Amino acid sequence: MAETIRHDKTARQLRLLSDALDSGRLGPVRRLVNTLSPAEIGNLLESLPPAKRSVVWGLVDPEDDGEVLVHVGEDVRESLIADMDPDELVAAVEDLDIDDLADLVEDLPDTVIDEILKSMDRENRERLEQVLSYDEDTAGRLMNPDVVTVRADTTVDVVLRYLRLRGELPEHTDHLYVVSRRHQYLGRIALQSLLTRDASTPINQLVDDEQPAIGVEESADEVARMFSDHDWISAPVVDDNNVLLGRITIDDVVDIIRYQAEHQALGAAGLDEEEDLFSPVPRAFRRRLLWLSINLGTAFLASSVVGRFEGTIEKIVALAVLMPIVAGMGGNAGTQVLALMVRGLALGQVGASNVRTLLWKELRVALMNGLSLGLLLAVVVFVWFRDPMLSLVIGSALTINLCFAATAGVLVPLGLKRMGFDPALAGGVILTTVTDVMGFLAFLGLATLILLR
Amino acid sequence: MAETIRHDKTARQLRLLSDALDSGRLGPVRRLVNTLSPAEIGNLLESLPPAKRSVVWGLVDPEDDGEVLVHVGEDVRESLIADMDPDELVAAVEDLDIDDLADLVEDLPDTVIDEILKSMDRENRERLEQVLSYDEDTAGRLMNPDVVTVRADTTVDVVLRYLRLRGELPEHTDHLYVVSRRHQYLGRIALQSLLTRDASTPINQLVDDEQPAIGVEESADEVARMFSDHDWISAPVVDDNNVLLGRITIDDVVDIIRYQAEHQALGAAGLDEEEDLFSPVPRAFRRRLLWLSINLGTAFLASSVVGRFEGTIEKIVALAVLMPIVAGMGGNAGTQVLALMVRGLALGQVGASNVRTLLWKELRVALMNGLSLGLLLAVVVFVWFRDPMLSLVIGSALTINLCFAATAGVLVPLGLKRMGFDPALAGGVILTTVTDVMGFLAFLGLATLILLR
Repeated sequence: MAETIRHDKTARQLRLLSDALDSGRLGPVRRLVNTLSPAEIGNLLESLPPAKRSVVWGLVDPEDDGEVLVHVGEDVRESLIADMDPDELVAAVEDLDIDDLADLVEDLPDTVIDEILKSMDRENRERLEQVLSYDEDTAGRLMNPDVVTVRADTTVDVVLRYLRLRGELPEHTDHLYVVSRRHQYLGRIALQSLLTRDASTPINQLVDDEQPAIGVEESADEVARMFSDHDWISAPVVDDNNVLLGRITIDDVVDIIRYQAEHQALGAAGLDEEEDLFSPVPRAFRRRLLWLSINLGTAFLASSVVGRFEGTIEKIVALAVLMPIVAGMGGNAGTQVLALMVRGLALGQVGASNVRTLLWKELRVALMNGLSLGLLLAVVVFVWFRDPMLSLVIGSALTINLCFAATAGVLVPLGLKRMGFDPALAGGVILTTVTDVMGFLAFLGLATLILLR
Repeated sequence: MAETIRHDKTARQLRLLSDALDSGRLGPVRRLVNTLSPAEIGNLLESLPPAKRSVVWGLVDPEDDGEVLVHVGEDVRESLIADMDPDELVAAVEDLDIDDLADLVEDLPDTVIDEILKSMDRENRERLEQVLSYDEDTAGRLMNPDVVTVRADTTVDVVLRYLRLRGELPEHTDHLYVVSRRHQYLGRIALQSLLTRDASTPINQLVDDEQPAIGVEESADEVARMFSDHDWISAPVVDDNNVLLGRITIDDVVDIIRYQAEHQALGAAGLDEEEDLFSPVPRAFRRRLLWLSINLGTAFLASSVVGRFEGTIEKIVALAVLMPIVAGMGGNAGTQVLALMVRGLALGQVGASNVRTLLWKELRVALMNGLSLGLLLAVVVFVWFRDPMLSLVIGSALTINLCFAATAGVLVPLGLKRMGFDPALAGGVILTTVTDVMGFLAFLGLATLILLR
């Protein structure tokens, strides 16, 4: 399912655009690009090799420049910013919402930041500084300080008049927030209820104080969880004294959830989710080298286990032929358990209270799989090498390794989590090291004990 | 980042609940459970082994039962439904929104479905039947037919009076839809603009006809893409004749995006995203057996390549010790490229127009990594085995295998996609088969040519 998302439409646009670019006719390219939303333009730019990317970026309507920069990964953003002169940059970003601007600001040159701060009025400058004072990946950085507040001691009629005077509301406003004299958050009023209730209704009869406000230092992940568990569209953000600071809307939460998924998928392969598909070769080389070096280290570890059994292999070469099967199957089985555990940990579904039950379940599954596949493997090996004892050894070794794989699949992510590491990122490497080492050890060890007697 | 989501709060609740359950005091358990939202209760139930799950399910406020069923995976849902008698089930689900009911209906016993259809009024029954007539994973199944429509030839004042008469609006209503006499979709009006514009303003001045309507047969993935690219909160759904059928709201889209991510993460390990953490052992065994059997087949393939070189290994046992390194490193490097490609394909960023540029970039990265790591590996192997020719062989074999890995990392997912398979699911198995086979072939082949001269 996941693979088809965006594909059809974007891939078609990409092809059209690419053909137009190749033919050198920039008019059609410009027209095509400017029918797209900023997020779509960002996606398209990410799919282009550097030279074409630069050409298309020059054709984007300057009005969309800021929003496009918000919607691309950091690597691509850097390359786009490098293509702009300071005036263009200032013009591009000065009209962005405060939360989007806060998101961009660290990637901008200092001179541009100074320009932007100068061009802002005092209120907005203070708001930006406030948002920037919170850590990245917290509610404070996600919130937009632009909220509409009302007081409780008034009526629908008065609020309606106030709104008409005020004019346009901030984007995605679905509630007004009710605050005290000291700007403390008291509750919210749905726009719906302003529309459906009588004009003389006192506001305090409409206040919904059920939805908790989000603390400004709450993590972005927890914010995403709350939105998705409660089907919120927007939520107020408050400080420790319950003073209303801003609001978070679901469109930003959708972005967090998407990034989480990308982070997990790419992180498991040792990649950064900001990685540009067309990042410069030397940069991609350096980034991957570290990951591959770690893997080389673990490969040596497994290899040194095999080295202990050189004498055995020398006498029975079939062992060398078959040993990758035992190790590899352990890796496959362990990866299944790991994937279930990573999801369970991410959802908070696994903890000290149920890990024993889970381990016991996985061990039984592993034993059943080990016996079935071990038997199958033993039969195939017998047909191949005509040696019943070799069949016995490989069948037993597989069963043993699958049990180790299940144990490692449960305990490795849990241990990583306890030590403060991300099991989705480091789990795979450690797990396959365990299954390789145990696979070689069980198979070659049993072979030494049984076949070389 | 992803691993901490939900963890803190949910894991704490889980521990509290588990302690209370173990002590047998059900009063505190009931109180604890009923402070949670249905999604949170669902999450908690998923984290409990079957026996405890059954106890806690019995304590959930019957009013929340339906919503909880909507929020759990299919396997767990089945186990919860098995615990309920038909009357309870009918009571639980009859007040659900049509879209949620449609989601559940296929998991309910026939007798219960009949009961529910009987208990519905004609309008709702027809709506349910309509929603069910569309394929799963299409806009038609996601939409809620409950929409508020107005006509263009009226004024704000009239609409406001209509809304006051009508009373409550459907959840997450942020726009009213303007339709023609034949119920064709013409555009939408933000609740905001009703509140901020003068009462005498004609409705047709407020209509926003910029946002395209979603076709009822559009795929759920495409719907998610549109919402996320355009920051929509809700969108109208129309049939081929542009007749308004319903609306989709972003909370359902958030669910799709989360499922896509889970589907991808678990699917890559050959698991179903509906898999219950505590699924019965025989079921888990059967489901995993198929996947592991496929992997056993590919392992035999790699193994048979090694088998061709038995004679070589017999003479130089060090080859058996070192061969897993070459094969394994190819797998690691290829997986990195695969992860980037899977994301690129999911975002529609990779296609015929840029695959050559991409392959060329990845080949250069692989060559640089191959030469650096090949040199490192050669040095370590020289220190270990004191054989310069063996060092040369393994360094070259690693470089060759990394280049094959990069090629397979780019072409395998693209080929799978073309053939209509999901590259995120099948890519890993095929890729590691290629890197294992090529790794053994390059290393043992070169060894035979160079060392056995």
